[in-house]
Amino acid sequence: TEMLDLPFLPFCIFLGGLGFMCMAFVSAWCQHWRGGFALDGGLQMFNWHPVLMVTGMVVLYGAAALVYRLPPTWSGPKLPWKVLHGALTLAAFSLAVLGLVAVFRFHNNHGTPNMYSLHSWLGLATVLLFSCQVGAALAPPHPGSLLHARRPHLPSLQWLAGFSAFLLPWAPAWLRALYKPVHVFFGSTILMLSVASCVSGINEKLFFSLRNGTTDYKCLPTEAVFANTLGLLIILFGVLVLGALARPSWKRPDADSPDSCQVPAPLWGHAG
Amino acid sequence: TEMLDLPFLPFCIFLGGLGFMCMAFVSAWCQHWRGGFALDGGLQMFNWHPVLMVTGMVVLYGAAALVYRLPPTWSGPKLPWKVLHGALTLAAFSLAVLGLVAVFRFHNNHGTPNMYSLHSWLGLATVLLFSCQVGAALAPPHPGSLLHARRPHLPSLQWLAGFSAFLLPWAPAWLRALYKPVHVFFGSTILMLSVASCVSGINEKLFFSLRNGTTDYKCLPTEAVFANTLGLLIILFGVLVLGALARPSWKRPDADSPDSCQVPAPLWGHAG
Repeated sequence: TEMLDLPFLPFCIFLGGLGFMCMAFVSAWCQHWRGGFALDGGLQMFNWHPVLMVTGMVVLYGAAALVYRLPPTWSGPKLPWKVLHGALTLAAFSLAVLGLVAVFRFHNNHGTPNMYSLHSWLGLATVLLFSCQVGAALAPPHPGSLLHARRPHLPSLQWLAGFSAFLLPWAPAWLRALYKPVHVFFGSTILMLSVASCVSGINEKLFFSLRNGTTDYKCLPTEAVFANTLGLLIILFGVLVLGALARPSWKRPDADSPDSCQVPAPLWGHAG
Repeated sequence: TEMLDLPFLPFCIFLGGLGFMCMAFVSAWCQHWRGGFALDGGLQMFNWHPVLMVTGMVVLYGAAALVYRLPPTWSGPKLPWKVLHGALTLAAFSLAVLGLVAVFRFHNNHGTPNMYSLHSWLGLATVLLFSCQVGAALAPPHPGSLLHARRPHLPSLQWLAGFSAFLLPWAPAWLRALYKPVHVFFGSTILMLSVASCVSGINEKLFFSLRNGTTDYKCLPTEAVFANTLGLLIILFGVLVLGALARPSWKRPDADSPDSCQVPAPLWGHAG
């Protein structure tokens, strides 16, 4: 297997270029063929939906997932990298929420029902799963800590710690050891579901938009080739991120060793 | 992480039930709402396409992928399990090819262009990638072996060995060590692409079929709820298979030890 060993940084640069191409393709599609962008509740508002979803749920999400694969994160303090992982994740989540706002506003303004297609069911399930993932990572480590946070001493610090159990290192080691594989599994799952949502969404949008004469989807006009290519680029990006995440030699070698905890003793015990 | 340890066999039974439900749902959808099955080149011929694709590329493929996760495969001779893995894979591949025949025949009989939608691009790319995977697993281990197979001594055995390098244990250990991670990576990737193809295909078919009055997809008639649910079941099946494949504690512990090779010496050397 050594002969197949790939250096991470060139791969990362290629992946960055691919992510940039996904964002450029989806923006160019909406700008050039679908009439551009606006906030007026019309089709130009809808156009924010694909751009925000691809940028947030695929590109930024993929970048956030790969933070701990960067070799500089393997030694030294982990906190800056946790902050980077958290910031990229929250940026991805914010764009996804705005992307949902764009499509719901457009549907509501046009009297179109929401949430009937498989694309919409899958897409909303993906964002809900993502919100659970973000919530679980930021949640207080156990109910006692919330009570604890209301104690008079150090209230603001405790509150901050309680709501960022996995960002900051105060969560008990057993809980983090228990939660980490769940977080990793759902992390990859959400990216897979995002990619499947994007593919079904692009397919659906092209059937909606390209319906007559020489611009029919069946005739494969330039727009269809361009947007199909966008779909394949998104799939390639997703597969490469998932492959990089699964690659054993790119994993942080000492992931579960005690030095991944920066504070030797937790600030509170297990009592509520 | 021990607290999260899940027994494999109950999981496997649940997964089997889920796979059965996927096949039952796709068959019931085509039978009850789409007019049933025939080989006449009409819409009833098209109906074989979703049934064969879901059964082959998702359910049988998932079963084939999980063969080496069965604890009985971890000890004793590996050949029977390789034959089972190969047989399930070839069954999956055959159904996929028949599924493609069904949709191409239907399109050609109706003068509908083939290969224009993102669903068709992704679906065909998935089956082509699958054929490369099958081809690579059955291919001669190196060009020399083909020449070797034409030598007069033991021709039929050599030919068989040459074309089933990974099914039978004659391939040199270095080549199998090199190829295995590639096989595993593309194995998971193909399943992901299959699931994304199914989701986009179901979504597309519902937009095609449900177009007027109370049966419009927008009105979410019973058929739409049923087929959307099929899509979610397929996604759940795919995610659970991929999760099971990635789970470290379910992997064959001695996967790369010498005893995974049943024949101590290869039948030929490296010379062509």
